Order: sequence, then structure tokens, then C-alpha cells
Amino acid sequence: MSLHGPYDTDNIFAKILRREIPAAYIATSSRTVAFMDAFPQSKGHCLVVPKMASRNMLEMARKDLSAVTDQVQVISKAVQKAFNPDGIIVTQFNGAAAGQTVFHTHFHIIPRYTDTALAGHGEAKMADLAELKALAAQIREQMP
Amino acid sequence: MSLHGPYDTDNIFAKILRREIPAAYIATSSRTVAFMDAFPQSKGHCLVVPKMASRNMLEMARKDLSAVTDQVQVISKAVQKAFNPDGIIVTQFNGAAAGQTVFHTHFHIIPRYTDTALAGHGEAKMADLAELKALAAQIREQMP
Repeated sequence: MSLHGPYDTDNIFAKILRREIPAAYIATSSRTVAFMDAFPQSKGHCLVVPKMASRNMLEMARKDLSAVTDQVQVISKAVQKAFNPDGIIVTQFNGAAAGQTVFHTHFHIIPRYTDTALAGHGEAKMADLAELKALAAQIREQMP
Repeated sequence: MSLHGPYDTDNIFAKILRREIPAAYIATSSRTVAFMDAFPQSKGHCLVVPKMASRNMLEMARKDLSAVTDQVQVISKAVQKAFNPDGIIVTQFNGAAAGQTVFHTHFHIIPRYTDTALAGHGEAKMADLAELKALAAQIREQMP
């Protein structure tokens, strides 16, 4: 089934990790990198990924998984302080059938605002990088 | 905003943790309990919750969060072996605006099968407990 297969070192998040393409970085830790989703479903939509290569969460080493979910919590709290959303959705897709489009493990942090509909996953428009960097800075300012 | 507030000790997952109402338990660990979702969006849809009281992920102690996400991975791997889905969605909702309906932190593990549409969150029908217990046993058999 499609949950297994070779890791493609040219996937877009691997390129972001290698700084080969631009991204609106929020923060890095020894095992993780967080950056803004280039196709945001809502204001403040961001991602936390492990530095180690893995196609999906099922393949992750335990220490990397804990490091990523710790950082998901840290970033979610900062997003809450920065943008005061009404709710926050955390999602993580494993396999194309689950909605995964980039095959490097990633956790989505998606703020929800009751007065704004959520753009569909894969339907959102590409955001302006400078605007994303400004949002990343707002999140970073709220990190402990 | 709605992400904060008192913890209601009579929420349905607190009752399940206290064994006051029936559930199709998969496994317990020192900090977590896993059981089948009573309103499954797909075959094998299950939940992992911390034993410690918290309304949502943002309030969780770090050790509890790591224990829960470790168990999410263990159970997801077992779900994969038991039912061979084409993908697995992991979701975690914080706040009613994000789709949270039970205010005890929980992670959803939702298998995806390409030939079967996903029932909407909050739209799925209540499942038969005996059938859920049989699925829980199938998952448990695949746990290390």
C-alpha cells in the first residue's frame, strides 16, 4: 500500500530543510523546523516537520516524534497568543489517500476563526512570501 | 476565547476513563487510554487520550503529550497491520470552533480507504459496541 515506499530527497520540504528554496521560517530546534504553509487554509497556518527524513509519521523514530509534537504545542500556544483564533486544528496526513501531498512527515497547525471559512486542503491560494514572513515573526515573538 | 475554561469532569471521555460508561478499549498505558470512536468516520477509527485532565492539547503537560503521541504512533501502526488502509489521518481539535465536541484532549486516528467515502465528523452513526470491541481486539492483536 501507499504508506510505504522510498523517501524522495527532492520533495519540497526536504528542499526547504536544505534552504534550497525560500520559506517563511518560524523556528528551528535540534530535531525540528517550523515554517508557514505556503498555501494557508487560514491566517497563521503553519507546519512543524522533523529534520530526519521520513515519508510519514508511522516511520518516525520516537525521539523525533516527541520533539515534533512538543514543538507543535509550543508553536500552537504562540499562534494562539499572536492571532487569538477561536480554535486550532492539528492534522497530520499519512499517505495520498489521507490527503498527504508532500511526502516528508509534517504536522499542520491550522487556526480557526468563527467568522472566516476554512480554505480546503489543496484548494488554498499560494500566499505572498513577505506576508508569510511577517506572520512568522508575529508567532516567533510569542514563543517562550 | 473558547480555548480556555474549566475542565468538566462529567465529559464523556472522563466517564470512559473512570469506566462509568462502556467503551471498546484497545489498550492503556501509564499515561494514556486508547479506545474505538463510538461514531466512527471509517472502519478502525479510534482515539488516544491522556489520563490526566485537560481540555485540549495546549493545556497538556509535556510528558503526557509525548506519551499520547507515542501511543498514537503505536496504535496507527497496529491499525495499518489490522485493516491495511490506504492512508491514515491523525487529527486533534482544540476548541469548538475547530470541531472539538468532547472537551477532554483526544487524538483521532482515522483510516482512509480509497473505495469508501469518509463520514463527516459529527455526522457518523453510532456503532454497535460489540462490533467495536471486535475491531479493538483486531488492533490489539497487532500491537508489539
